[in-house]
Amino acid sequence: MCESADVNVTVLGLGLIGGSLLRALAARGHRVTGYDVDGSAAAAAGFPVAGTIPAALADASVAVLAVPLPALAGVGAELAGFPGIVTDVTSVKGPARAAVAHPRFVGGHPMAGTESSGFAASDPHLFDGCAWVLCLEPETDLDDWLTLAGLITSLGARVVPATAAEHDQAVARISHVPHLLATALSGLLEGQAQAATLAAGSFRDGTRVAATRAELIAAMCGGNAGPTAENLSTVIGALSAYRDALGAEDPIAALTPLLERPGLLRREWPATTFSTVEVEPDPAALLALGRAGGWLTEIGPVLVGKRPETDRSGS
Amino acid sequence: MCESADVNVTVLGLGLIGGSLLRALAARGHRVTGYDVDGSAAAAAGFPVAGTIPAALADASVAVLAVPLPALAGVGAELAGFPGIVTDVTSVKGPARAAVAHPRFVGGHPMAGTESSGFAASDPHLFDGCAWVLCLEPETDLDDWLTLAGLITSLGARVVPATAAEHDQAVARISHVPHLLATALSGLLEGQAQAATLAAGSFRDGTRVAATRAELIAAMCGGNAGPTAENLSTVIGALSAYRDALGAEDPIAALTPLLERPGLLRREWPATTFSTVEVEPDPAALLALGRAGGWLTEIGPVLVGKRPETDRSGS
Repeated sequence: MCESADVNVTVLGLGLIGGSLLRALAARGHRVTGYDVDGSAAAAAGFPVAGTIPAALADASVAVLAVPLPALAGVGAELAGFPGIVTDVTSVKGPARAAVAHPRFVGGHPMAGTESSGFAASDPHLFDGCAWVLCLEPETDLDDWLTLAGLITSLGARVVPATAAEHDQAVARISHVPHLLATALSGLLEGQAQAATLAAGSFRDGTRVAATRAELIAAMCGGNAGPTAENLSTVIGALSAYRDALGAEDPIAALTPLLERPGLLRREWPATTFSTVEVEPDPAALLALGRAGGWLTEIGPVLVGKRPETDRSGS
Repeated sequence: MCESADVNVTVLGLGLIGGSLLRALAARGHRVTGYDVDGSAAAAAGFPVAGTIPAALADASVAVLAVPLPALAGVGAELAGFPGIVTDVTSVKGPARAAVAHPRFVGGHPMAGTESSGFAASDPHLFDGCAWVLCLEPETDLDDWLTLAGLITSLGARVVPATAAEHDQAVARISHVPHLLATALSGLLEGQAQAATLAAGSFRDGTRVAATRAELIAAMCGGNAGPTAENLSTVIGALSAYRDALGAEDPIAALTPLLERPGLLRREWPATTFSTVEVEPDPAALLALGRAGGWLTEIGPVLVGKRPETDRSGS
């Protein structure tokens, strides 16, 4: 079903993620070709870089669109006649799925650091141990999905099966909403020099990501507007309940029970004990593993993965 | 006006803060006496520990109430006939001011770490460089305030002049509201094993303090209910504006301008350049220094302090 050792991969876009992918694939013995509007840094580093997208695709069986979301539809359209598998690395998967019309498109998202950018910052070890969401939809060809999963696990990453909708909900919760909370909290320093002097650990950590450029936060959150707004509403609801409790006759007694369950969830995160599991090569079984917080580590004659032993299904 | 080298200080309550204060004062050559319901650990460490509060107060010129807020009124009442200066170390200053009736009471709050507790965790260097708010109210005797300020700067701490109301507003912004945001964010993990697996840096930092015990967060926030609710409302307002922007036709364009100013405030925090200033021994001048984000470092023939050069008065 998949033989990851000799896949011929073309990486379109050679920034931090694309460049790191080119390096990581080459280091694991895969044949690679790169393409970028300016591919000179990758060429200077000794990688084969094609002069055009058609040239880059000529011998490839997998094409990775490693371009930002706004460029995805345009570059994706140039792959119309490409017979191989197509994947991407953008951070929202519903819009990516809508943007790329290719019949063998499988959306992907490596949850790898992106604080630096450009080929110069690329690193063949960027994906070691990283969670890499690989989208599994009704239209997805399972063999294509497993080929990509094999390629990704060969880089040392953990393949998390999810639908695009599940992915986008999850990243709203764990990344997009946190950026908006950090920003709103930073706003409390307006005109407050004394508060700025007294601020320490809880403020520092709670606002760290607010230092990200406004356009980048807006692009992330606005690119995933529905799930971000929905989860932001949940947070606003919780904060409103806390505010109501602060107005109660005994605010401490009113507030305490509201804080207990979220505190427990945080103390139990991240999970620390995992079971090794074998998974059927079946979309429903794979998605169930992903929903349980699990991932695949080996794509061979059997599919091997891990799942957390913590029960997060409720109190 | 103050001679900090031979102040005789009694510390009532020998937990982390009280114990550290006993150690720090003794290390700087001050005469100290301690008292605690169980003072055995301090006595075993070689400190003079009195058997009763009156005995502890017998020769003291300053008494520090190093007990939690709920115990403050009760222990404070035992100081009714004490002729010396009284201060405290609790984390909300309006309620402390209301709880301690002593005519020479000056509220204080060392912004020092409290993740550990008990005398066993005490550290003579706990206050090195820490901001220590010292309350200056219309009823405060300035000489008493300066005596305490001299004692505190002798420990290497930075004395921040503030009214109780200013202090409580500031800590709501930089500590109490951050704890509630972290808790609300942690609540988004409910039943979300996949999100828990994908969560990384922004979630980890944004939720760190939610792991604090619910009763402690509720006691902090509920003990400062008014300012916490007020600032929480400001945050809810900002988050609601972000949510509205996410519903706009072009959410990225709508969201970006809302994030710019808070992001700038965070990038400029903490201040890194400071001016050395001399301050008149006058309540208005001292409070103005505190409002500008400044603090005192030396209480001598002249008062010397620092203030940040960054202008936080607005955009």
